[in-house]
Amino acid sequence: MAQSDISRLIDALRCLPGVGPRSAQRMAYHLLQKDKTGAAVLVQSLDRALSTVRHCTFCNTLTQTEVCDICLSDKRDRSKLCIVEMPADVVVLEQTRAYSGLYFVLMGKLSPLDGVGPKEIGFDMLLKKVHETKPSEVIIATSFTSEGEATAHYINQLLDEQRVSVKRIAKGLPVGGELEYSDGSAVAQALRDRVDIE
Amino acid sequence: MAQSDISRLIDALRCLPGVGPRSAQRMAYHLLQKDKTGAAVLVQSLDRALSTVRHCTFCNTLTQTEVCDICLSDKRDRSKLCIVEMPADVVVLEQTRAYSGLYFVLMGKLSPLDGVGPKEIGFDMLLKKVHETKPSEVIIATSFTSEGEATAHYINQLLDEQRVSVKRIAKGLPVGGELEYSDGSAVAQALRDRVDIE
Repeated sequence: MAQSDISRLIDALRCLPGVGPRSAQRMAYHLLQKDKTGAAVLVQSLDRALSTVRHCTFCNTLTQTEVCDICLSDKRDRSKLCIVEMPADVVVLEQTRAYSGLYFVLMGKLSPLDGVGPKEIGFDMLLKKVHETKPSEVIIATSFTSEGEATAHYINQLLDEQRVSVKRIAKGLPVGGELEYSDGSAVAQALRDRVDIE
Repeated sequence: MAQSDISRLIDALRCLPGVGPRSAQRMAYHLLQKDKTGAAVLVQSLDRALSTVRHCTFCNTLTQTEVCDICLSDKRDRSKLCIVEMPADVVVLEQTRAYSGLYFVLMGKLSPLDGVGPKEIGFDMLLKKVHETKPSEVIIATSFTSEGEATAHYINQLLDEQRVSVKRIAKGLPVGGELEYSDGSAVAQALRDRVDIE
C-alpha cells in the first residue's frame, strides 16, 4: 500500500529535534484535526524562512539580510568580540543584556568523533575577522562540554599570535543553583576553581 | 523593528502540541542550520496533507480518500463497531492486531467545561451508522478520564433502544504494570473492579 499523506507527514515531523514517532503522530493529528490555521501559517513561515534566511557576512549568524542587525548597529562596542557555537547562543546572550559587543558564530564546535575538525568550522573566517576588526578583547563563550572546551582551547591557540586579550566566560555553579541539586562534577569543578572573595 | 522571518517561524512552530518558546527556538535553528532538506520535506508534506486529508464518510476518521482503507476492506468483521475519541486511537488499536471490526471516530469527547456538548460531537452520525450497519456488538473505547467516561455513559444511553450489545474496554492495571509504580487511584480502582480468576 502506498504511504498515505498522513504517515508521510508523521515521518516528516520527525526531522524536528526531540520528536520521536509518538510525538510526531500526536503533532500530525493535532495539526490536521485541531489547528489547520496554525499548520498553514507554519507551512508559509517555514517555506519563507528557508528561502530568505542566510549567514551574516560579518558574524556568520543566521539572518535574512546580508549583514545582521547586531553587526549593522552603531550602538555596539566594536572592541569586543564574543565567540559562540550557534545562532541560538547569540539570542541567549542578547537576552541577558549584559553584553554590547559584537559576535562571531562558529556554526558548530570541534567534534573529531563526528568528523568535525578545524576545517569544518569557520576558523578561517574568524581569523580573518579578528585581523580586520582588531578587537581588543575576544570572549570565548563556547559551552562547557568536552567539545566546547576543546574548541575554546583551539581558538585560544589560534589567536595566540594576534595582539588581543582572549578571555573565557566563567564556569561554576549557576546563580540560584543549590549544591544539593547540582551535579557532583559541577560542584567539584566549582570547588577547584574557587576565587577570592572581593 | 519588523518581526524577522526567523522569529515568525519560531512563533509558528508553537502551534505544535507541547512546544513552548524554547523548544520552538531550538527547532527553528535546527531546521535552518542543520536540516534544510528535512524542513523542505516538512513544508511539502504538511502542505499536501492539509489539502488532501478529510473525514471518512463512514467512520469519520481522517483519511485522504472519501472512504478510509479500514471501512473499504472486505477483511473486517462488520458485526463489530469500536467507538474511539480520535483518529490516533484507531492507529493504536490497529497496532495491537487484536481487533478486526470497524471503527467510529467521535472526533472529541464530551467536555462541558470546554463547551463541548453532545451537539459538538458526531453522535448523530454515530446513531445513523448504528441504524444502517446494525452491528451486533458496540465496543466503547473512549479514554478513562472523566470526559471519556462521561462520553461512554452518554453513548451507552444513546444506544439503549438499539438492539445491540454495548461493551466497554476493560479498566485496570496495565499488563506489565507494577503496583509499586502505579498511581494510587488506579490501584484502588483495579482492586474495586476485581474479577474471578478463570
